[in-house]
Amino acid sequence: MLQQDSRIPLQKIATKLKVPKSTVHYRIRRLEREDLIQGYYAKLDASKLGYDYLAVVLVRAKYGPQYHKKVGQKLSQVPGVWAVYYVLGDFDFILLIRAVDREDYMRKLESVSSMSDIERTSTQIVARVFREDPRVDTGA
Amino acid sequence: MLQQDSRIPLQKIATKLKVPKSTVHYRIRRLEREDLIQGYYAKLDASKLGYDYLAVVLVRAKYGPQYHKKVGQKLSQVPGVWAVYYVLGDFDFILLIRAVDREDYMRKLESVSSMSDIERTSTQIVARVFREDPRVDTGA
Amino acid sequence: MLQQDSRIPLQKIATKLKVPKSTVHYRIRRLEREDLIQGYYAKLDASKLGYDYLAVVLVRAKYGPQYHKKVGQKLSQVPGVWAVYYVLGDFDFILLIRAVDREDYMRKLESVSSMSDIERTSTQIVARVFREDPRVDTGA
Amino acid sequence: MLQQDSRIPLQKIATKLKVPKSTVHYRIRRLEREDLIQGYYAKLDASKLGYDYLAVVLVRAKYGPQYHKKVGQKLSQVPGVWAVYYVLGDFDFILLIRAVDREDYMRKLESVSSMSDIERTSTQIVARVFREDPRVDTGA
Amino acid sequence: MLQQDSRIPLQKIATKLKVPKSTVHYRIRRLEREDLIQGYYAKLDASKLGYDYLAVVLVRAKYGPQYHKKVGQKLSQVPGVWAVYYVLGDFDFILLIRAVDREDYMRKLESVSSMSDIERTSTQIVARVFREDPRVDTGA
Amino acid sequence: MLQQDSRIPLQKIATKLKVPKSTVHYRIRRLEREDLIQGYYAKLDASKLGYDYLAVVLVRAKYGPQYHKKVGQKLSQVPGVWAVYYVLGDFDFILLIRAVDREDYMRKLESVSSMSDIERTSTQIVARVFREDPRVDTGA
Amino acid sequence: MLQQDSRIPLQKIATKLKVPKSTVHYRIRRLEREDLIQGYYAKLDASKLGYDYLAVVLVRAKYGPQYHKKVGQKLSQVPGVWAVYYVLGDFDFILLIRAVDREDYMRKLESVSSMSDIERTSTQIVARVFREDPRVDTGA
Amino acid sequence: MLQQDSRIPLQKIATKLKVPKSTVHYRIRRLEREDLIQGYYAKLDASKLGYDYLAVVLVRAKYGPQYHKKVGQKLSQVPGVWAVYYVLGDFDFILLIRAVDREDYMRKLESVSSMSDIERTSTQIVARVFREDPRVDTGA
Repeated sequence: MLQQDSRIPLQKIATKLKVPKSTVHYRIRRLEREDLIQGYYAKLDASKLGYDYLAVVLVRAKYGPQYHKKVGQKLSQVPGVWAVYYVLGDFDFILLIRAVDREDYMRKLESVSSMSDIERTSTQIVARVFREDPRVDTGA
Repeated sequence: MLQQDSRIPLQKIATKLKVPKSTVHYRIRRLEREDLIQGYYAKLDASKLGYDYLAVVLVRAKYGPQYHKKVGQKLSQVPGVWAVYYVLGDFDFILLIRAVDREDYMRKLESVSSMSDIERTSTQIVARVFREDPRVDTGA
Repeated sequence: MLQQDSRIPLQKIATKLKVPKSTVHYRIRRLEREDLIQGYYAKLDASKLGYDYLAVVLVRAKYGPQYHKKVGQKLSQVPGVWAVYYVLGDFDFILLIRAVDREDYMRKLESVSSMSDIERTSTQIVARVFREDPRVDTGA
Repeated sequence: MLQQDSRIPLQKIATKLKVPKSTVHYRIRRLEREDLIQGYYAKLDASKLGYDYLAVVLVRAKYGPQYHKKVGQKLSQVPGVWAVYYVLGDFDFILLIRAVDREDYMRKLESVSSMSDIERTSTQIVARVFREDPRVDTGA
Repeated sequence: MLQQDSRIPLQKIATKLKVPKSTVHYRIRRLEREDLIQGYYAKLDASKLGYDYLAVVLVRAKYGPQYHKKVGQKLSQVPGVWAVYYVLGDFDFILLIRAVDREDYMRKLESVSSMSDIERTSTQIVARVFREDPRVDTGA
Repeated sequence: MLQQDSRIPLQKIATKLKVPKSTVHYRIRRLEREDLIQGYYAKLDASKLGYDYLAVVLVRAKYGPQYHKKVGQKLSQVPGVWAVYYVLGDFDFILLIRAVDREDYMRKLESVSSMSDIERTSTQIVARVFREDPRVDTGA
Repeated sequence: MLQQDSRIPLQKIATKLKVPKSTVHYRIRRLEREDLIQGYYAKLDASKLGYDYLAVVLVRAKYGPQYHKKVGQKLSQVPGVWAVYYVLGDFDFILLIRAVDREDYMRKLESVSSMSDIERTSTQIVARVFREDPRVDTGA
Repeated sequence: MLQQDSRIPLQKIATKLKVPKSTVHYRIRRLEREDLIQGYYAKLDASKLGYDYLAVVLVRAKYGPQYHKKVGQKLSQVPGVWAVYYVLGDFDFILLIRAVDREDYMRKLESVSSMSDIERTSTQIVARVFREDPRVDTGA
């Protein structure tokens, strides 16, 4: 329920679950302490904020001892890169990048391709987002 | 600020921005009406909820008039598929899938590959998530 | 010289080549009759006219008797497609496309990919044009 | 109209657009000053000038800081290379090359492949040009 | 120990593990009942039996509901195919095939490629076996 | 028969083949001396022992004199790698790897990819084993 | 010796091998009867005869029972195709084609690509022949 | 006619062409002087001489000034390599190799892959030769 609307009143949750409000309060605190709930965020519409140039980038890195840790961390810090997956397949990393326009995208891609550990990148421009909803399916 | 913590008190925002609390209230309402703020969500840790089998799936579909709209919508409804990008490149769609384990993943992939419009899928198993933070960079 | 500036006065050409103006006139008429000179065009700046979304599209078509003639002609008539090359290699056709923006490009690509003879397209978005000068090197 | 025939009399344009000839004159001057009209060229038939060996070359370059600017400019100066596109995809550059024959083409390709920044080239020989008309669609 | 030599006397195992022989007997029976021990085999040298033509075959199948079960079972019954893996990646199945010589291999491959569900096969001829030891690492 | 069950009594073989038991004994000894019979093994169920993460890894190595011998031997000693084939095709080596889980697999893959002779690896995760029976077809 | 010069006098061979001329005569007859010597040919220079457009064509065929026999025989009869190899790898057939010029080549390729059993062809234009000597190395 | 049988009597050619025998003699001498006739060879059956292991090898070389001349010449001298084509496409060279068996082939391939200029080779084993007739089509 908190994934649907983090500002739902505790009383409403309590009523639905038929438990006292204090129990709801207590359980939420525990989920927060266990880091299962990682935070409460307002979700903004990226395209309305001008982020209209999206890309999925397939990356090949140069091999070496522990290369994927070093490269993965560096990639995570490139502005505009909001997801960095280390994958087992034809590529080493798959990145999701948001940019304002082509010029902005090229600056961000340049930050990736100029790293000395990066061998190749292949950009797949996103023509349309059919779904992008990172909320976890809790079966609720 | 609401992206960092959606439960921040309005007064705190007001103090930081040096505007009256009522202005903050009014502006947030307007952002909500304009759908720039799409909601307030608790962010859960997918792996702690047991979603430990992640994959990026590269999909090729069969061509035909308006094929990408039909296929994109069908793909968006497959359980576990939380992102569906229609891309301009070697593939037609790139999917992000979360599953509990391999069996669960195979059921979800089967839902994709058994669609008559799908020609091929190539699964890239995610070995490690270095970053996955869908919050939009607002330069704040 | 006419490739550099089609409005150059005949007298100037005559002086440079050290031949009478009438000879220049006569020779140009002959080159026109032989269709070696195909016309006189003003060259416009595509990006200033709003054509800012350029792509090179690699196309694979379905094989069949004389398929490349039929497909090549159909591709030539798609709006926005300004070059259609039938190539001997991994692809069958390479197209150059100009569009105003992504939406416009997708409409044009849809005209290509919805043809029944087309098996696959792979779009290579042009990030920057370093050179695009179709004038023929005449060694002049 | 100037794209169709750059030598059209101003009076004819004026009559068509129903504006005074002086207005036509003034507007053309402005388009020239704004560099929207980049020049007036005679268009020659490349194959009649002996340029019968055409190729589209897919190029991969070695990555490095600002590599695409340096490489793009060098590629633009290779004789016979009339178009150089920096693309976001599996390749880094796509070149259009005109040569007289195979020997001439190989000399030109050698100028490309012997650059130290070039990793690989893949030549797609053009078997037939179905369309090559760089004029911009102005909706006129 | 039974993986190293299935004919090791129970007494020897008992001595090593410092347990009574009857316990060894009992435990082995239990492992057999639980199907953890699947059998006791003599290991033959395939090349000395004339099986000198080995190949790893990468297979793509046509998609359809439950296709991988049907195809996987059919592939498992082709003579000479001793391993059939359904994989998540660029291919659908990877087969290990042993044949006496090229003619024999081609007959076996023909059994695979003539199945209506098979789209493509790519044979990787084994030039040398550096290791092929299916025994499970038990950390013993 | 020994491939089916290495613990079959010699008398049973003798009866089946209609030869004296001593002949059976003598012939088995000869096959052992000729190394045609390489040993007698209990076959364990890898998945019941917790080896549930299987992969086929396609490996490209850096070329050099006798590279495949050096690399092949090093790959054979990586824990968890139970088969190493040197192949003539797009790849240089194909490995079969068994691991307990993803973390374990990644450690083993890291042992491969951190070798200085290895250029690239491509992991094909095994989703299902349809057949894995290394016994040689003796036509028996 | 006959491979080097089929018109060498028998006496010269006899002297070199230190056997009587009649023995040489007899042995050559036997090699002819056994079809080990398949004929005596003048070798012509293809490029001097105008065959200046050479290509290696990689062909993929549609699978089906005994497809490679049917397709291989049809390919062997295409004019200009002087070698047809059925290969085990990423392609099904590799062809060597000689043509007079591009037009001639395209006619010949059209004969290949218009066969209903052919799925794709990829032409590799030969830029230079470094060696083409079909004589068998006899260690002589 | 000399391509069909280099030992055809001059008289027979003369009769067929309805010219005097001396003319035939004279013309053949001229063709030899012009090097259009490059020699007279006995054609041997490679497979009967034990050359049963054939392969087409796709080679990628490292780029550099004039690399293809140096590499092409070196490849031409590798024993067993009877054809070396420098091609414009995805590969740099295509080789035809004849070997006695797999061991012999591997030695020959090792001579290729251990050259410092060679980046990768991909072997396509020939399963069947449908046609291999290097005689030039003279329209005779």
